[in-house]
Amino acid sequence: MGLDSTDPGTVRPGGRTARVRAAVLRAAGDVLAEQGFAQVDLADIARRAEAGRTTVYRRWGTATGLVADLLVDMAEQSLPRTETGSLLGDLKANARLVQRTLSDARQGALFKAVIAAASCDAKAAEALHRFYDVRVREWAPCVQQAVDRGELPEGTDAHEVIRAVSAPLYYRLLTSADPLDEAAADRAAEAAAAAARAGAYLRDTGSPA
Amino acid sequence: MGLDSTDPGTVRPGGRTARVRAAVLRAAGDVLAEQGFAQVDLADIARRAEAGRTTVYRRWGTATGLVADLLVDMAEQSLPRTETGSLLGDLKANARLVQRTLSDARQGALFKAVIAAASCDAKAAEALHRFYDVRVREWAPCVQQAVDRGELPEGTDAHEVIRAVSAPLYYRLLTSADPLDEAAADRAAEAAAAAARAGAYLRDTGSPA
Repeated sequence: MGLDSTDPGTVRPGGRTARVRAAVLRAAGDVLAEQGFAQVDLADIARRAEAGRTTVYRRWGTATGLVADLLVDMAEQSLPRTETGSLLGDLKANARLVQRTLSDARQGALFKAVIAAASCDAKAAEALHRFYDVRVREWAPCVQQAVDRGELPEGTDAHEVIRAVSAPLYYRLLTSADPLDEAAADRAAEAAAAAARAGAYLRDTGSPA
Repeated sequence: MGLDSTDPGTVRPGGRTARVRAAVLRAAGDVLAEQGFAQVDLADIARRAEAGRTTVYRRWGTATGLVADLLVDMAEQSLPRTETGSLLGDLKANARLVQRTLSDARQGALFKAVIAAASCDAKAAEALHRFYDVRVREWAPCVQQAVDRGELPEGTDAHEVIRAVSAPLYYRLLTSADPLDEAAADRAAEAAAAAARAGAYLRDTGSPA
């Protein structure tokens, strides 16, 4: 039941193995943040993590396999949502969290790099989609609470509202050199709240078949 | 004044040179769409374009230099905006254009790849930012027209409204496996219009210093 019998990146045992994994994921994050996905080299990561090259190759197999495992780890570590008692307060807390993460030099570069990795590899893409799924599910209840309080119309798609908060911040990070500041975060939250109040995120608004 | 005296990727003369450039950019787009940025190899592109390897290396220098020139070309070819007479109509036309582009197999993969390239290289990033600048400037007048017609509050930031239409479509493309369908496009336009009407995109809404 040692490492040999496990699929790459699917098992998280304790002890030495867990320490190796933590060191390797840390090194992978550093390389991605410093150099981007195109430069990821498993041998370099093994060196930085002071882990055996054979261990790293056997366990993760490829750079994209390692990125996929890094995303699993990022999803596990993602922070629980804040509850402020109002929709706008909750969405602003979410937007500020996204904005602080993406405007941090290491984290911003890391997110760009994992998105780049996902565009070249199906396994990394699947892990990326799961990461965002976890985040959206964590925050969606604040939208349902706003519906229950009568702040938003019945039938509002909570997942779409949460995605609407993040979307302009990611779009700004990826397509512009504009700063990701608190004003951008607050505007993203205000726009999502206003659109939700106006019914733009009602489920099944398509025309009848 | 032949190719030798030009900086890589900065000059667009006519005749044979223009044909070489078109063939090379086409091949670069194909490789990016099929294999992603991590696999871009100038020699492979020269082969596909039936262009001289030396010409390609001398003119574009690196894969990211070539991606930067491809983005210049994409900006030049981007379609003029549609005018429908109403804000929602104009924003829907814009959203549908973005959605058709990103949901096209080749174009969607190409956009993912140039965004990935921009995350590893400053020159590609600059070209990417310019590409989105051109697009935003092309569509921004429809927001100002809506302000002039009284559909939106004075002081609405037209660029932010146009970015708000694209953001959820790019976010969906990059972070989920959800389909980029016309319903998603219409919702993006409706949400941006509703938020704009509610004043979420007014300039200088930050708190006083």
